[in-house]
Amino acid sequence: MSFSLAFSIYRHEQEFQMRANSADQSARTVSFEQLTDLLRRIFVAHGTSAEVAEVLAENCASAQRDGSHSHGIFRIPGYLSSLASGWVNGKAVPVVEDVGAAFVRVDAGGGFAQPALAAARALLIDKARSAGIAVLAIRNSHHFAALWPDVEPFAEQGLVALSMVNSMTCVVPHGARQPLFGTNPIAFAAPRAGGEPIVFDLATSAIAHGDVQIAAREGRLLPAGMGVDRDGQPTEEPRAILEGGALLPFGGHKGSALSMMVELLAAGLTGGNFSFEFDWSKHPGAQTPWTGQLLIVIDPDKGSGQSFAQRSEELVRQLHGAGQERLPGDRRYSERAQSMVHGISIVEADLERLQALAGH
Amino acid sequence: MSFSLAFSIYRHEQEFQMRANSADQSARTVSFEQLTDLLRRIFVAHGTSAEVAEVLAENCASAQRDGSHSHGIFRIPGYLSSLASGWVNGKAVPVVEDVGAAFVRVDAGGGFAQPALAAARALLIDKARSAGIAVLAIRNSHHFAALWPDVEPFAEQGLVALSMVNSMTCVVPHGARQPLFGTNPIAFAAPRAGGEPIVFDLATSAIAHGDVQIAAREGRLLPAGMGVDRDGQPTEEPRAILEGGALLPFGGHKGSALSMMVELLAAGLTGGNFSFEFDWSKHPGAQTPWTGQLLIVIDPDKGSGQSFAQRSEELVRQLHGAGQERLPGDRRYSERAQSMVHGISIVEADLERLQALAGH
Repeated sequence: MSFSLAFSIYRHEQEFQMRANSADQSARTVSFEQLTDLLRRIFVAHGTSAEVAEVLAENCASAQRDGSHSHGIFRIPGYLSSLASGWVNGKAVPVVEDVGAAFVRVDAGGGFAQPALAAARALLIDKARSAGIAVLAIRNSHHFAALWPDVEPFAEQGLVALSMVNSMTCVVPHGARQPLFGTNPIAFAAPRAGGEPIVFDLATSAIAHGDVQIAAREGRLLPAGMGVDRDGQPTEEPRAILEGGALLPFGGHKGSALSMMVELLAAGLTGGNFSFEFDWSKHPGAQTPWTGQLLIVIDPDKGSGQSFAQRSEELVRQLHGAGQERLPGDRRYSERAQSMVHGISIVEADLERLQALAGH
Repeated sequence: MSFSLAFSIYRHEQEFQMRANSADQSARTVSFEQLTDLLRRIFVAHGTSAEVAEVLAENCASAQRDGSHSHGIFRIPGYLSSLASGWVNGKAVPVVEDVGAAFVRVDAGGGFAQPALAAARALLIDKARSAGIAVLAIRNSHHFAALWPDVEPFAEQGLVALSMVNSMTCVVPHGARQPLFGTNPIAFAAPRAGGEPIVFDLATSAIAHGDVQIAAREGRLLPAGMGVDRDGQPTEEPRAILEGGALLPFGGHKGSALSMMVELLAAGLTGGNFSFEFDWSKHPGAQTPWTGQLLIVIDPDKGSGQSFAQRSEELVRQLHGAGQERLPGDRRYSERAQSMVHGISIVEADLERLQALAGH
């Protein structure tokens, strides 16, 4: 059993802080627009087209703004080393194909998944609104970001969206001895009448990779059931997972079945690679999984003649009444609101490093 | 906190055995056709139309044949008491509406969900094949069966199917104090080139209701994390869950998010009731949840130009290679094969009771 990406991801935790402590004297704040512009310039300076840079910069800045720190500037070294290695094509032009009244497919051309989604988005929305549901199958793509930014915008337009992306072998299927699945997240977004959309984004692994890294850095043990060591034995020691071990699916055989579904839908159905199929050994520095992604978008008001957003609001009201104070997405919205008012706090040394990467 | 259905479901475990021990002298075997015919006559004798009886009998006999004992003849008393109570309409005629190139909706008329699916199936398949994906939104329906029989037939025709159904309040959302969600299962089916379809059917609760009942009957404690008692405190005692307690979602906040998604898609989007919305207090004996169901069907070969069934076979081959010997659905196929060769084993007293219910 070996977990080939462990060292490379583990390494760059040293390069950027996951978050700035706002009490830290050395932190500075930037606006969302400033951060997006800075990141855009970094991507262009490291070999992406202007179009790709625009999409990736907004995605990465959004994660930083919303407190999704493991998918914010923390990821920049991984993006850049993957680009430098020649593993991912930063100038790929996605090829969108209209293959049915409710089916769009995209060959991402070995580039990133987010520009492929951006290229197909308008057609996908048109189809969902006219046919009632539509699917987007992206292949030959690299997804290195959080998944919630891919679904939230559909809910802001009154649509329901579900997405899945497979990644790279690091999860042992339930009952197996060796890792095969990726962390294979599932994200879902639905509009509601009385507030921001309901959005979740969950890895089908028991724990996110970034959280294992944080525990290792802080010297904490993990709860039981998160992973195994290089010999396949259960361990609570994060370093044993990172150094040749692997993760387990969340929720035992059920999470494992869902992770298998993600492989089948995000790769099998799209024509992308399964999480175990790509070989980046000839591209030292490569960190981005070369797989596929599926999105399903539904016009919910075709279902019943009722207003879906009113119905989802009723569910939220009942969830609050049952004592669930925080809904999926709430923490991101709260961080977003803070960031929009007070700016995004970034450690000064990190900001200087970003500025250096942008070339001035 | 109270779990109103607990006693009624708990009660009828006494009436039919969940399974016959084949070493038991008092067991008899019947063919699938004989069992289907017997169940069909029972349903008609208790107030369903011939069409509804046909669908329910085949569904229930299939579960018994495949070793899904908690959804086999064990459920017959629940079906019959619900029919007798006037809660469910055994003669409902589903109304199918074609509302988009890829969207079908059905008003099940207060009847069972399976005849509603049967009425819409041909249109749904036509749409999936022509548009690439199609969705079926069933509302005003009662689902009292396993969910895998709803998806498996699509995979036998080369299609991928995903379904969700909400049920009745018995699961405490993660972080809440009171139950709100149903057991809210998700089922998925995908074709494969070298064998039977890959099919899973998983409750988003930590444990199925039937398994709590079995543990109570056998006097066993449950693993930690399955449920809470009437005061909302964690318990491993199955009777404390059944007698006023509630279940927990599987996999903590992740399973809870998925259960919320099932409420939104199976009820919010279809126009069905949420799991907490219906009141059967005026129908003593009612046991069937009056909610909604969503099915999504995809033509997978539109995605990539590759054969999906060949790709899913490759995933199965790799899963076996990684040491996962049993795939989701394998146990059912094995039991099915046994039943087709040797007949379905049923305790003699149960068979006599079924014959009495059929009226001779």
